[in-house]
Amino acid sequence: MRIRSVLSAAVMAIATTFASTQALAQETFTLRLAETWGPNFPIFGDTTKNFAERVEKMSDGRLKVRIDSANKHKAPLGVFDMVKAGQYDMGHSASYYWKGKVPETLFFTSMPFGMTAVEQWAWFYHGGGMELMQEVYEPHNMLSFPGGNTGVQMGGWFRKEIKTLEDLQGLKMRIPGFQGEVFAEVGVNPTNIAPGELYTALERNTIDAVEWVGPALDLRLGFQQIADYYYTGWHEPATELQFLVNKKVWEKLPADLQEIMRIAMRTASYDMLIHSQHANAEAWATIKEKHPNVQIKQFPKEIFQAMYDANEKLLAEAAEGNEQAARIIESQENYLNQSRAYTDISTRAYLNTMTEVE
Amino acid sequence: MRIRSVLSAAVMAIATTFASTQALAQETFTLRLAETWGPNFPIFGDTTKNFAERVEKMSDGRLKVRIDSANKHKAPLGVFDMVKAGQYDMGHSASYYWKGKVPETLFFTSMPFGMTAVEQWAWFYHGGGMELMQEVYEPHNMLSFPGGNTGVQMGGWFRKEIKTLEDLQGLKMRIPGFQGEVFAEVGVNPTNIAPGELYTALERNTIDAVEWVGPALDLRLGFQQIADYYYTGWHEPATELQFLVNKKVWEKLPADLQEIMRIAMRTASYDMLIHSQHANAEAWATIKEKHPNVQIKQFPKEIFQAMYDANEKLLAEAAEGNEQAARIIESQENYLNQSRAYTDISTRAYLNTMTEVE
Repeated sequence: MRIRSVLSAAVMAIATTFASTQALAQETFTLRLAETWGPNFPIFGDTTKNFAERVEKMSDGRLKVRIDSANKHKAPLGVFDMVKAGQYDMGHSASYYWKGKVPETLFFTSMPFGMTAVEQWAWFYHGGGMELMQEVYEPHNMLSFPGGNTGVQMGGWFRKEIKTLEDLQGLKMRIPGFQGEVFAEVGVNPTNIAPGELYTALERNTIDAVEWVGPALDLRLGFQQIADYYYTGWHEPATELQFLVNKKVWEKLPADLQEIMRIAMRTASYDMLIHSQHANAEAWATIKEKHPNVQIKQFPKEIFQAMYDANEKLLAEAAEGNEQAARIIESQENYLNQSRAYTDISTRAYLNTMTEVE
Repeated sequence: MRIRSVLSAAVMAIATTFASTQALAQETFTLRLAETWGPNFPIFGDTTKNFAERVEKMSDGRLKVRIDSANKHKAPLGVFDMVKAGQYDMGHSASYYWKGKVPETLFFTSMPFGMTAVEQWAWFYHGGGMELMQEVYEPHNMLSFPGGNTGVQMGGWFRKEIKTLEDLQGLKMRIPGFQGEVFAEVGVNPTNIAPGELYTALERNTIDAVEWVGPALDLRLGFQQIADYYYTGWHEPATELQFLVNKKVWEKLPADLQEIMRIAMRTASYDMLIHSQHANAEAWATIKEKHPNVQIKQFPKEIFQAMYDANEKLLAEAAEGNEQAARIIESQENYLNQSRAYTDISTRAYLNTMTEVE
């Protein structure tokens, strides 16, 4: 009896040590993520799903991400607040949605006449962009990371061709946010309408034009059936979504899981541009084949110039008396100038060359 | 004594179980990687270094990658053979280097008048490219993954301006591989010269022109001091490097470490384009400031058309009697056509728009 009880105590002690070591090594985390998008929203929603799958696989199940779409949390534009307050551990959204709360968050999604996706990532990772973004999110107890790029968004669907600035006066267009403000400066009457009502609004002339994303997402809403003019983009040349992570949650993760998160978010961000390119090319082929009424149009130079000037004016206003905004705008403008000079002799020259051969 | 020895045996038994469980959980792997590049080769070498660091961090040290540069293994173009034979576990190189051994490897780096980086990744990940690449590498006991993109490579440095096809006749140019063959078809005399001798060869008119990579890497070789004409690219619009992994080595890795490898390689591949964009933009700004003699030139349409036709002819020859090559070429051409139609109305239209505003 004595031997057995001593043994038993020793075994217990060792077993406890063993279990706690194992528990430490195997400690699992489940992060709850709130996304702005509805369930099964194409491309955007695939980005969070792929991210969650990869994180789980890379961590051998130690880190799980449970995604709640907008139908679940009912607050598509509440992601900032919910992650800040710790109601959710992380979020997937777009930084420019928070400009009403924190004006400097505007600059981290895409700016009119701004950088392309490749230029913007170069700015984030090599040109000080990540540091500036972190400076903006730090006081809100969150980390922000690039979360997926749509590429150049199309300039929108118009029922009438736009030939002069005159044609824009009083034109009712669905175009939200800062981009809408730029359009307003040149005479457009920007409105925001829920996605589910856009088609009817355009069909019944409640609005004259609508900006959405690009062929892949636009095709699903059916605009090609009721609008003939599809304009090229200028207002969101590289819309970058955003992963938000609550800082306290981040700090609880061990270094290896933080790195797994960091690399999985980084890959997800790149991957979304590639997915968008594929899906947009496929959808554009469909539109061309099945809706030959659709014509690609570019705004005339006069309109681009007016919008460019309006954008400059609004940026100057945003910088006025806001030292942080001024620094971010300056950083982006300098980076864009240097980066675009190279893009022009490389990618742009190449793409134009290809239109010269048959 | 008796109690102690029984206890001791029990402790030993439990400790052994504990140690072996821990050993299983903590089994570490060190992969030896041979890269084609010399030590500290900018951008390309950073790609493998960052990859190795991230893999180690994500796996909490369970997976290490030890990089041997060309000065160590002395076989920059032997990476394919060394990884195939298992002398190295993995490699970092470029698929088109192996076309002498396996003709179908040509298609996975970049093709003249081919896809841009974004289009090509879309082809790899959504258009069947990965499956075709794997089909080519499978018989050689290796897996191949995209390993980093340079973006559009510049068309080269010329000491005299090229105005007509006549100017290309007999022109001695450093341009290797399939791209050199295309140039040969239009009258150029392509040669390959070791990097260390390129500057002297160009200075002493041993060659008349040299193609290297882009501003960041070209600047270091000094061509801007002795050549005034810097031509835009057409021959390698999206040079994608390659990670090679020996299949037996891959299969020995547990699923979590395989996923860590897969995602780390994928991010490294994207990251290199972003790093290239940054470094090229910086170098191009330096060239413009310090070497105002350098002029950007584009080949005239007549020359592009001749090179385009030569490329088509060589591709037709490559497809002749080679079912696999024919399938790959067809897949790339179809994908390019669909993807470029969208690139033209998005990225190209946007970049051109921006040149219209002041």
